[in-house]
Amino acid sequence: MTDPQLHDSRFLRAARCEPTDTTPIWIMRQAGRYLPEYMAVRSKVTFLELCKTPELAAEVTLSAQRVLGVDAAILFADLLPILEPMGLELEYRPGPAIMNPIREAADVDRVTELEEMGELDFVFEAVRLIRRDLPGNIPLLGFAGCPFTLASYAIEGGGSRNYIHTKKLMYNDSGAWNALMNKLTASLIRYLKAQIEAGCQAVQIFDSWAGCLSPADYRQYVLPHTKAIVDAMPPDTPVINFLTGNPALLPLLRESGGNVFGLDWRVDLKNAWATVGHDVAVQGNLDPISLFANLDTLRNRARAVLNAAEGRPGHIFNLGHGVTPEMDPNNVKALVEMVHEMGQR
Amino acid sequence: MTDPQLHDSRFLRAARCEPTDTTPIWIMRQAGRYLPEYMAVRSKVTFLELCKTPELAAEVTLSAQRVLGVDAAILFADLLPILEPMGLELEYRPGPAIMNPIREAADVDRVTELEEMGELDFVFEAVRLIRRDLPGNIPLLGFAGCPFTLASYAIEGGGSRNYIHTKKLMYNDSGAWNALMNKLTASLIRYLKAQIEAGCQAVQIFDSWAGCLSPADYRQYVLPHTKAIVDAMPPDTPVINFLTGNPALLPLLRESGGNVFGLDWRVDLKNAWATVGHDVAVQGNLDPISLFANLDTLRNRARAVLNAAEGRPGHIFNLGHGVTPEMDPNNVKALVEMVHEMGQR
Repeated sequence: MTDPQLHDSRFLRAARCEPTDTTPIWIMRQAGRYLPEYMAVRSKVTFLELCKTPELAAEVTLSAQRVLGVDAAILFADLLPILEPMGLELEYRPGPAIMNPIREAADVDRVTELEEMGELDFVFEAVRLIRRDLPGNIPLLGFAGCPFTLASYAIEGGGSRNYIHTKKLMYNDSGAWNALMNKLTASLIRYLKAQIEAGCQAVQIFDSWAGCLSPADYRQYVLPHTKAIVDAMPPDTPVINFLTGNPALLPLLRESGGNVFGLDWRVDLKNAWATVGHDVAVQGNLDPISLFANLDTLRNRARAVLNAAEGRPGHIFNLGHGVTPEMDPNNVKALVEMVHEMGQR
Repeated sequence: MTDPQLHDSRFLRAARCEPTDTTPIWIMRQAGRYLPEYMAVRSKVTFLELCKTPELAAEVTLSAQRVLGVDAAILFADLLPILEPMGLELEYRPGPAIMNPIREAADVDRVTELEEMGELDFVFEAVRLIRRDLPGNIPLLGFAGCPFTLASYAIEGGGSRNYIHTKKLMYNDSGAWNALMNKLTASLIRYLKAQIEAGCQAVQIFDSWAGCLSPADYRQYVLPHTKAIVDAMPPDTPVINFLTGNPALLPLLRESGGNVFGLDWRVDLKNAWATVGHDVAVQGNLDPISLFANLDTLRNRARAVLNAAEGRPGHIFNLGHGVTPEMDPNNVKALVEMVHEMGQR
């Protein structure tokens, strides 16, 4: 049972396609390296230590929400630490690397499905601390990577240009592929549910790398797994389903389910909303590099996104992808103010 | 006046949407590092020397066509050498780098529009040598980068993840942006026309990086320039207009013009052809990583692309992007045979 103040918050009303006083906004990677408040904390610990120290993860989550004045906080965490208790050796140097990547069926056998969440307690403890200190009208978002994105990290061992190892396994051994995706899916369901139980009001699932797939491959190898996650979430908790890099997958993303569909900047928001359907909410979709424009141009570009939403209830403003480290925090703050001002009804 | 044997070649008939005995195929980057014939030549010279020595460029172009049995040859060249006589210092180490990148209006002023093509004679000489030795039923394709892709290289100084400098100039100084795009466009028109005069039967223009743009930005900052190039080509020379990385731009690509639209693998070919219109030809669009699958799977995946074309005249088979160096040349040859066999009417 959600607290009434949260239930009627701008963000959660918009996620249910209900009217709001103005367009809600939050920013992907809002607690990141571009913020001095973040860097002050980060300078004392490694990235993984920051993720694994609930007090610090809570501090950077809360300060970002407070400094920017955004309508939601998002748990400071990373997509990949869930892979550690599943048997994958994760290092940041500084980009993430998997030291024992999966390459064939035998490697899939050594991946452990997470039955219980003990080793990820630092995440749920951070959620509890954040929820305790967050303003009562600000929802806290949990999140996780989608099975494809985690599988491709686990297989490639890091970022990839062409996803050769991932697609090789997918195309040549669909049994091993499905076994891996099933283990990830079952683990992710428990992980997201535990975040919700600890105090998150909504969750976002990120398929950051699925844009490398054709529609036919997404349908065959990925959609059923993402759909299983969405279907398993509690009905009163909105799911934001985000995929970046391939607008042709939007109809399939809709099929995989969710309440809010995250749009990257490659699409026109008006067309994309028509594609996923006006019965669901959308989130997005300003090109993040707009934050490097002068403030007049930034305002015009933000207005164009609001205009594309046509004042329809169910638009949550965001960038089409995360903030980059080089950004000026003042421009990010200015964007939040602009959206709150121009989005008024 | 095109030679009748060339005019009636599989490739050129398909480019005009005329029926063919089987589906024509060529492969982007078919003369590349995956081929032992290429490596034998490349081992003796640098990449730029290979580009600039017409006899060697001709040799790798011709051997790739012969070894693979494809229905078109494509000039061995690179997108970037045109930037050198325009005043940009180009190095390969081994990735391309521009040593004096463009960052602001004053930098645009020092870029020279190419009035005459003398410094690129090595390209046209290669075209003449290739055309002389190519089988009489095999068209030779010329090519160039589109203005946006060349501009983003010139501005970023190399490959880029987020195109921050490019978009900064585009958003904050549209005068300087247009001046740069106009210089590139005028130079590219002369460059492509000279390739055609030297002996190319068709040209492909590559917007390899334009997928980072939203539809609104592509329309405002890029489309008019690409369109000016297509409009300036001789009417009897087919133009293949290729953009990768953003299916939402396909309707705008069609607006920019061309006879054949190059599709990457992110789209379903059937849907994409309906989007650009059945009055034009399409080229593509097998996921290149399919070449790492076993031959049965490769055959099934190639068949799926052919099926999506529904036997309609005007389909030129290709990968959705270039061959990668790790590929087995035998699989590429096998793909060519499969398409010729399964594409028969």
